[in-house]
Order: sequence, then C-alpha cells, then structure tokens
Amino acid sequence: MSFLRICTGAARAIARPLPGGASRQLPRRLGYSLSQQCRFQTTGAHSASTSTQSKLTAPERFTTDSYPNLKRDPKFAQITEDDIAHFKSILPHRSSILTTTGAHANATPDDLEPFNTDWMRKYRGHTTLVLKPRTTTEASQILSYCNFRSLAVVPQGGNTGLVGGSIPVFDEIIISMNNFNQIRSFDPVSGILVCDAGVVLEVADQYLREQGHIFPLDLGAKGSCHVGGNVATNAGGLRLLRYGSLHGTVLGVEAVLPDGRIVNDLSTLRKNNTGYDLKQLFIGSEGTIGLITAISIQCPQKPTAHNVALFGLQSFDHVRQAFVKTKQQLSEILSAFELMDGNSQDLVAKVTGKKHPLESKCPFYVLIETSGSNDDHDAAKLDSLLEDLTTSEIISDGTQASNDTEFKGLWSWREGVPECLGHWGGVYKYDVSIPLAEFYDLVTATRKRCIEAGILGDRPEHLVVDVVGYGHVGDCNLHLNVPVRAYDKKVEQVLEPFIYEWIQERSGSISAEHGLGLAKKAYVGYSREPAMLKLMRDIKKQYDPKGIMNPYKYVEE
Amino acid sequence: MSFLRICTGAARAIARPLPGGASRQLPRRLGYSLSQQCRFQTTGAHSASTSTQSKLTAPERFTTDSYPNLKRDPKFAQITEDDIAHFKSILPHRSSILTTTGAHANATPDDLEPFNTDWMRKYRGHTTLVLKPRTTTEASQILSYCNFRSLAVVPQGGNTGLVGGSIPVFDEIIISMNNFNQIRSFDPVSGILVCDAGVVLEVADQYLREQGHIFPLDLGAKGSCHVGGNVATNAGGLRLLRYGSLHGTVLGVEAVLPDGRIVNDLSTLRKNNTGYDLKQLFIGSEGTIGLITAISIQCPQKPTAHNVALFGLQSFDHVRQAFVKTKQQLSEILSAFELMDGNSQDLVAKVTGKKHPLESKCPFYVLIETSGSNDDHDAAKLDSLLEDLTTSEIISDGTQASNDTEFKGLWSWREGVPECLGHWGGVYKYDVSIPLAEFYDLVTATRKRCIEAGILGDRPEHLVVDVVGYGHVGDCNLHLNVPVRAYDKKVEQVLEPFIYEWIQERSGSISAEHGLGLAKKAYVGYSREPAMLKLMRDIKKQYDPKGIMNPYKYVEE
Ligand SMILES: Cc1cc2nc3c(=O)[nH]c(=O)nc-3n(C[C@H](O)[C@H](O)[C@H](O)COP(=O)(O)OP(=O)(O)OC[C@H]3O[C@@H](n4cnc5c(N)ncnc54)[C@H](O)[C@@H]3O)c2cc1C
Ligand SMILES: Cc1cc2nc3c(=O)[nH]c(=O)nc-3n(C[C@H](O)[C@H](O)[C@H](O)COP(=O)(O)OP(=O)(O)OC[C@H]3O[C@@H](n4cnc5c(N)ncnc54)[C@H](O)[C@@H]3O)c2cc1C
Repeated sequence: MSFLRICTGAARAIARPLPGGASRQLPRRLGYSLSQQCRFQTTGAHSASTSTQSKLTAPERFTTDSYPNLKRDPKFAQITEDDIAHFKSILPHRSSILTTTGAHANATPDDLEPFNTDWMRKYRGHTTLVLKPRTTTEASQILSYCNFRSLAVVPQGGNTGLVGGSIPVFDEIIISMNNFNQIRSFDPVSGILVCDAGVVLEVADQYLREQGHIFPLDLGAKGSCHVGGNVATNAGGLRLLRYGSLHGTVLGVEAVLPDGRIVNDLSTLRKNNTGYDLKQLFIGSEGTIGLITAISIQCPQKPTAHNVALFGLQSFDHVRQAFVKTKQQLSEILSAFELMDGNSQDLVAKVTGKKHPLESKCPFYVLIETSGSNDDHDAAKLDSLLEDLTTSEIISDGTQASNDTEFKGLWSWREGVPECLGHWGGVYKYDVSIPLAEFYDLVTATRKRCIEAGILGDRPEHLVVDVVGYGHVGDCNLHLNVPVRAYDKKVEQVLEPFIYEWIQERSGSISAEHGLGLAKKAYVGYSREPAMLKLMRDIKKQYDPKGIMNPYKYVEE
Repeated sequence: MSFLRICTGAARAIARPLPGGASRQLPRRLGYSLSQQCRFQTTGAHSASTSTQSKLTAPERFTTDSYPNLKRDPKFAQITEDDIAHFKSILPHRSSILTTTGAHANATPDDLEPFNTDWMRKYRGHTTLVLKPRTTTEASQILSYCNFRSLAVVPQGGNTGLVGGSIPVFDEIIISMNNFNQIRSFDPVSGILVCDAGVVLEVADQYLREQGHIFPLDLGAKGSCHVGGNVATNAGGLRLLRYGSLHGTVLGVEAVLPDGRIVNDLSTLRKNNTGYDLKQLFIGSEGTIGLITAISIQCPQKPTAHNVALFGLQSFDHVRQAFVKTKQQLSEILSAFELMDGNSQDLVAKVTGKKHPLESKCPFYVLIETSGSNDDHDAAKLDSLLEDLTTSEIISDGTQASNDTEFKGLWSWREGVPECLGHWGGVYKYDVSIPLAEFYDLVTATRKRCIEAGILGDRPEHLVVDVVGYGHVGDCNLHLNVPVRAYDKKVEQVLEPFIYEWIQERSGSISAEHGLGLAKKAYVGYSREPAMLKLMRDIKKQYDPKGIMNPYKYVEE
C-alpha cells in the first residue's frame, strides 16, 4: 500500500486557491481555439470516431461522403447573388459576411474551412456563406429573410461540439456567433450574469472570477466553446455534480426564432412562475428551433479551498460504497467523484511513461475533489473520510495532493485518459448514462464480447487494444472507450447495436452530454420512445415550420 | 444591543439535528389536510385575498359570483348519465368516483365541498363529479374519453394552491390525484426518488429522511400538497436557495396528455441529451397541458448540522451588504437568508404578545440558517461571519439559537409573519420577484402611496393597518403584504395597477412562486410580452387542441 498520508496526519493536503485564480482544468492543449495551428495536424483528445464511420476521416472527406444516404432536401433554396446582396444590405460591417461565390466573393475556400470542419475533423460541410451578425436585430433580419427564402442555416458557436451539430451537411448558411461577444451585465450581489451567446466560456469564467464568482459550468473545451453553444447543447461538464444542470442555473434566454421573431425571455429572476418555461426548450435544442443570442445565468460564489485525493479500490461495489460515504461525509463540499478503471490507468502509464501515483495495482481508481470556503474545515472533512474509507477497507490504497503540482498531477491521471487512448490509432467512444447499479457492467460486457469475437489482444492483428471505462460516477455518466489499432467495420459490428441495446434495456441514455447532432441522430430511438419523438417533432414543427434550422440532424425524421 | 453571543465566544449555537429528524418547518397548524375540521372555520395564514376581490369570501360564494364576467364555454359538453356509466366501466374501484347527480349519485354536495373549495375559501366551483384514478392507465382512459366528449377537467393535487388553479370554475370534472400515492423506487446511492404524483410532500420527505436524504423542496403546505402539485406549480419554497429550482432537480415526469397519450419521460438519469427536454414544460404548467402521474427527482443528502441566527440592521443597504458577506463566508452551507422588516416584526409582537428576541428596534431583521454536515465547522463559519458583520457595523444587533427551542423560536419570528398579518381582518398579498437592487423599494413606494391616499393609519376608519415586506432575499422573492381592517375596493384601487406597473418597470415578476391560476391570469401581461404569450398559447394549443385541461385559467386568452 502506498503511503496514505492522511493516516499519519502528517502531510494532509494543504488546500489552496489555484494558480491564476483558475480552477483545475484540462491542460490548455486539450482546449483549442480557431487560430491554433495544430488543429488540422493532431486529432487531439476527442478525435476519435464516435463510431458511425469506419475510417478516420481526412479533412478533405465531406460529410456527404461519409453519409451517402443523406440527400439535400430540394425544398431549400440555393443561395443567389441577390441573397448575398440582401445580406450585405442588412449587415453593415464588411467582416460580417464571408463568401466564396459569385460577384460578392470575398474569401477563399480555405478561409471557410474552419467553419466547414468540426473539431474532430470528422464532419465537413459545403457552405459558401458565413454570416456573423453583431446584434439581435441583425440576427432577426437574417433569419426572417432565410425563412422567407427557404434558405437552410446552421447556428455555430465555438464549434467544439462532438456530434457534428455545428457543421453544415450541404450548403446550409453558417450563422457564426463569434461577434456576439459582450458581457451585458453582472450583479455581484445576486451572482446573476447576462451575456451575449458568443462569449467564450473561459472569458465568462475569468470575468466572473475577478468578481468572486465562477461560471456554473466547466469543460475541456472552455477556451473555445461559447456560453450560447453550452446552452444549445445543455453541456454537462465538470461542475454538474456540484452546481447542477443548466436547466436549473440558466434563468433566461434571448433567442431569434426561424421567422425572425425575437423571444425576449432574458429574465434575471430566480423565481418567475408566469406561464410555461419556454426557455427550457432552447436548453439542449442544438440550434434546431432558434438562434440563442443571449443568456442570463445564476453563478455561484468562487470556492476558495480545493483538495484532491486519489485512491484505489478492489471492485466496483467498493466504488459504490465509497461514493455513498463520500456523499454523506463531504456532502456540500464534494465537487468531483471521478472513476478510472485499472485498464485506463495502465494505458495512461504506458503512453506517458509516467509512474502511477499509487504503488499497488487496483482494478478501480477514484479521484475526489472538494471545493469549499474554508481550507481547514475541508481538509478535516476529507481526512476523516479517508480515514473511514481506509479503516472500513473500502479503499485499499490512496494519496492526497499536498501542493499545486501534485493537485494537477493527480488530475492528470483522470484528464489524460481520453488523450492517451488515441495513441494506437483511434478510439470508439460512447458517452452514456447508466443507472449506478449497473454502471460498470457495460464495460465488462463489452470487453467480454470483444474477447469472444477474437478482436481484443496484444498482437498487431488484434484490432482492439482494450476496453476501458471512466467517467463521472456522481452523474451516472460513463465514458466507454474502445481504443483500436485501426477503425474497422468488424469492430463496429461487434460493438453496435450491442452497446445501444444494452443501454436501452437499462433505460440508460445513449448520449449523456454530447447531444444528438448528426452522429447520434440515428440512435435516438434507443433512448426515446416513439411517442416522445413524436412530441419533439411537433415542437420542431411549431417553432420551425419550414425546417430551415439545422436540418438533417437531431430528431428530424 | 442585545447580547450578541458570538462576540464572547461563550455560547455559540450548538448545531444539532432537529427533533424527529424533521427540518424547520411551519407549525403544523399552518399546514392543513382535507380532514381537518378547522378548515372552514379559520382562514389561516394564507387566507387573505390576493386582491382580485374586495370582500372576504364566505365559503358559499362561488367563483362565478366573484368573477361575473367569466362565462361557461359552450364548447364543453355537459356530464350525462352515460358519461358516468362509462367512467364506472373504466374505474373498477367504487371509491374512485364521487358524484352528486343522476341515478349514479353516491355523494352529497357536502362530500364534494372539499374538492370544490380551495384552501383560502376564496374559490368555489360547481363540479358534480370527482374522479380518483389509481393507475396511469385509468388516468389515460379518463382523459381520452373526456377529450373525445369535450368534457373539461381540472387536475387536483393537495389543493393547497394559492391562485385558484385547482378548483373548477363551472362544472369541470375534478381529477383528484389522492389515490396516486405510492413511492415507486428510491436509490440511496444516487439519491434518486421515483414516486407517484399524489404522494404528499411530507410523506416523501419523511420517507427520504429515513434513508439519509431529504426532498429538495420544503414549504408550509407540506402536510397536504402533493409532489405532483409541486411540480405542476414549480413550487419554490424554503430550500430553493440551497438546492435550486425543480427545473434542475426533477429528472423525469410521467404524464397523461389530454388525448390520453402517456408521456413516458420518467428518466432516472442526471444527464440525458437526447432531444428537447419536454418534461420541463410540465414543470409549472398548472394542469393545463396534461396530468402528471409520476415524477423522478434528485434528492440531496440530509444535512446533519443546523444553525440559525437573527440580526438587526439599520437600512436595506446594510441588508445587501450582509447578504454579500454571508454568501461569501457561508457559501456552501447557507440555507436561508430571510428578510423581515421592522413593521412586520412589530405586528407579530403585537399579535402574539411576545417579546422580540432582539432588544433594540431595527428597521430590518435578517434570519440566516446554515445546514451542513459538520456541527463544529458550520458553527465556526457562522461565528466568524457574525463577528465580521458586527465589527464592520453592518449589523447592529444579533442573536443565535443555542438549543432547539431557541432555533424554533427565532424561526417563529419569520414564519409567524403571514399568520399574524391576518389578525385585523384581511391581507392583500403580493408574491413577487424584484431584482435585488430595488428589492425593498416597492414596500416603501406602496407605503408612501397608502399614506398619501389617507388610508393607512392607527384609527378604525383607516382601512390599511400597515404595509410590510418580508421574504427570501436570496431568491429576490419579496412578499409585499398589506394588512387591512376590511377588504375594500378603495384599497385595491390604490394598490393596483400601481404595484403591477412598478414591477413591470423593473422587469420583475408578478408571481414569483404561486403561479397564475385564475387569480393572476389577468395580470400576466405585466410580466410577459405578447410575443412570449403567443408562444405559450401555441404550446397549449399543441398539447390540448380542444382546451379541456383546466380551462379559464393560466395563459388562456
Ligand atoms: C476537448 C473537449 C472537451 C469537451 N468536454 C465536454 C464536457 O465535459 N461536457 C460536455 O457536455 N461537452 C463537452 N464537449 C463538447 C462541446 O464542447 C460542448 O458541446 C459545447 O457546449 C459546445 O459549445 P460550442 O459553442 O462549441 O457549440 P458548437 O459546437 O458551435 O455547436 C454545438 C451545437 O449547438 C448549436 N449552437 C451553437 N451555438 C448556438 C447558438 N448561439 N444558438 C443556437 N444554437 C447554437 C449548433 O448548431 C450545434 O448544433 C467537449 C468538447 C471538446 C472538444
Ligand atoms: C400554508 C401554505 C404555504 C405555502 N408555501 C408555499 C411556498 O413556500 N412556495 C410555493 O411555491 N408555494 C407555496 N404554497 C402554495 C402551494 O402549496 C403550492 O403551489 C403547491 O405546490 C401546490 O401543490 P398541491 O398538490 O396542493 O396542488 P393543487 O393546489 O392541488 O394544484 C395546484 C395547481 O397544479 C395543478 N395540479 C396539481 N396536481 C397536478 C398533477 N398531478 N398534474 C397536473 N396538474 C396538477 C392544479 O390543476 C392546479 O392548477 C403554499 C400554500 C400554503 C397553503
């Protein structure tokens, strides 16, 4: 057993504010910004197929190639010179229009490439026109014209989505929210922020930190994703366990409907029971019923004390026991309870060449983090929890961070997982929700299935390197990852529909946080009954009768 | 200045679990249950008019008398013998039908009175038929038949709503959820409860306490209101500051649509991004788009330590400063920050004859409560906050509870306010949200207006006794109350539309938590723009094209 510091009482973690005021976050290189050079050179952490394709796509491959069954809907008009002239008349700023065609062309196809391609280089569209409105009125004029002309559009935020939702399939016009980047107001007394939809999450968070608050959401893509994109995807991320979902924290939304009507629901009130809470429909709507132009959101106090501990456990049942005790004892200061299975940690060790912080090998590891307002109190609670977990033999090994470097070091064994898994060639990734009772069983079942199919092993001819599981136990959100030596139809057939059916039988979700977009559209039936889908399509029809908003995706038939 | 215990360090509050495991709550007599004899004898805490009428209604007064302009919509069928025969055929239990008319009559009008009359004795309907389904299938069969026959219905939960939403206006059939009273499942690991809509809130909470959890909502009517009614009204209550709104905690809803279709969205997953989050529409829909038959909800760990402190302040600006410091320093353990103005405390003292716990008279009082997992830590945080507030002269007086009796005693000065205000004859009550910057200004402005109108004073001929403000500062939720010696049109004309216009100018909400029902229907335009109301009515039309669900109320035109 490694030296479990808390047992001696000698070297308990010293809680401390994080450097630069920033909370723990993915190493910057996992984030990305549009200007980053590496974007088309390395596929990064989330680069792998979400399994709907069998070959890693080169950037020159179009979505229309990967999805040959998708046909352009002839009901949509083609963009004409007149259309562009019209857009010029309503968007006075020259830089608000980027187009490659006709007399109005002011850009090369390369200039449009960052808008036409997604973060994973998996989806690539054919747009020839990007519009970047600056005001809600401009956005309204754009949409009302597109609706009138039956021109299809795709709202685009930071373009970090992982399901192809922000990329046109054919020639849909991209409405980029990059110019919607103003903080409108912040009230440090109530903690309510009102800002444009295009404000980058990290910018919002940084702004709030200076005022003693934080954004209630944090995720690896924070350097690029927009708060409007977060709301449009109902992003979950790292703070959900502590601060809850956006359905609870978002107080208001300003949006433009497909016909140009402006929905002014930008309330800054925590309580407002005056009719249906329509803004909720926009949270997670992935650009299909309107363009979100601003949000108001309840932001929590910035915690001033942080602790992290990592421990090893002998079974998933021990993980569940540890979770119960942790919830009980850390209660209001618990901010992360992250699971990594032993296989995932072996792979990280192999790829990085680093030594795991715990000496003994365990089938499961858990990382817990506390964030609170008092260093001593939090450390005392954590110490007593770890002592209890050790005494009751729920954990078999453990360590705590005692300084900033160790704090980051421990987190790197959780955060490094997605990145390292890509090492062998590719990863089939499933971001799913499963009731806690059977949380890890999916990993075991999938591994068994791969072994039985003879595709998992150490030799080069084995397609599958391993089957690993990690994720947010606190949210029942499992990342099932299957690192492979090459993408191959054979692997896909072993994994699917097996995994989806397994999830369906447990009433789980085939998409916990990443949404449907184009990638998961075909599989939504595994998580939603036909009656629910019918109701959703009714909503779509009501808000977007001409179907111009982000077509071919989400719950479209 | 009273003895501010924390200054000496000698007698800091001893945090302790509350007796019987129950958290602080309104004295039981403030709750009510259908069998309580006193129901038609005393009007209780919330008895007063919400100002749409000018005379305290005797129980024999019908809503149709108070709202003479409301006409029965002839599109709705009248109940026939055949209808009742049909309901008998689908509801096998004899006790599932209560009716006063025709050959099938099995009840007297008195038996139906508790269903026809609301908690405030302000609304009274004419129903002759109450249906009490036991299963979702029964509920579905009822609604699909009613829809087919164009029979209007009113869903009724615990019937504690304060805006007349649960009472028929004419002869609408009441669908009582009293028989939907089963807990379906609880997972103590994840804290997720699934239960029938008709489970009484207190029953659910008690059940959860036995498993180390609590319901994330608490309110004075807990002894009678249903969890389904709570979701239907998006109830706020006492735990909102700490656990957030039902939009964040409710994970799933099972509901029956007006045409009998069953919406199965009873997810037990914290994360599920597979399409529009339709259950959100049911949260706060007040029975207008479907009957909620079950809910699943994320329940927090039961806190084991509680503290309460009461202090006096010299201005509302001091209250705001105290709130900022309190949020900063108590952060994750803060569970209540309640304001009572000096006038409200004077009235409580006058009515109860008790001595206020603070010696000095102050224009404002604040009660704060902490709920956490460690007695010593919480008490230390509270001590240090109170010391800071005293040293910086933000508070001018204060005391802490050091035992259970004192804990309840301090709370009684907050919880007693609504009850005591009724003492003189009646109360005009406004439950509103106002941005914190101008939170208390509405009270000042209303008081000034009453003085100028010559209606406020100490003499019997003065209609208005006082204008007081209290409420949940943490949620920007103000209770503006105007105790009167008699309900009178003159008072109403002074108060309205003045108050609504004042709120509208500050983008506040005319109904923070009680909803619209019949009482606030006419005023929704003060808080919602016509474009929003149009969208809401579109939703209503989509879900309930024949308009049979809870007609004449909410956002109906
Ligand atoms: C490294 C990395 C880590 C990630 N980690 C997480 C995580 O922990 N949790 C998580 O949930 N997601 C995660 N994601 C996915 C992604 O970052 C989120 O979905 C994010 O919320 C998307 O925001 P965006 O601004 O980039 O939106 P985009 O990718 O531009 O768009 C996403 C969808 O929203 C729509 N949309 C965007 N903006 C608007 C708008 N203003 N109005 C209407 N519709 C709009 C688009 O049409 C599209 O359908 C991660 C992604 C990466 C690359
Ligand atoms: C003493 C007292 C204190 C209160 N304190 C608070 C408070 O702090 N915060 C607060 O928000 N409210 C408060 N209320 C108001 C009230 O208790 C809440 O609105 C409560 O949520 C209503 O629940 P119920 O089951 O009694 O619903 P009911 O009164 O029966 O119905 C309320 C509305 O919901 C609909 N409805 C009920 N059940 C269903 C269902 N299963 N499906 C569809 N529609 C349904 C009805 O048609 C009606 O429109 C208080 C009331 C009292 C009497």
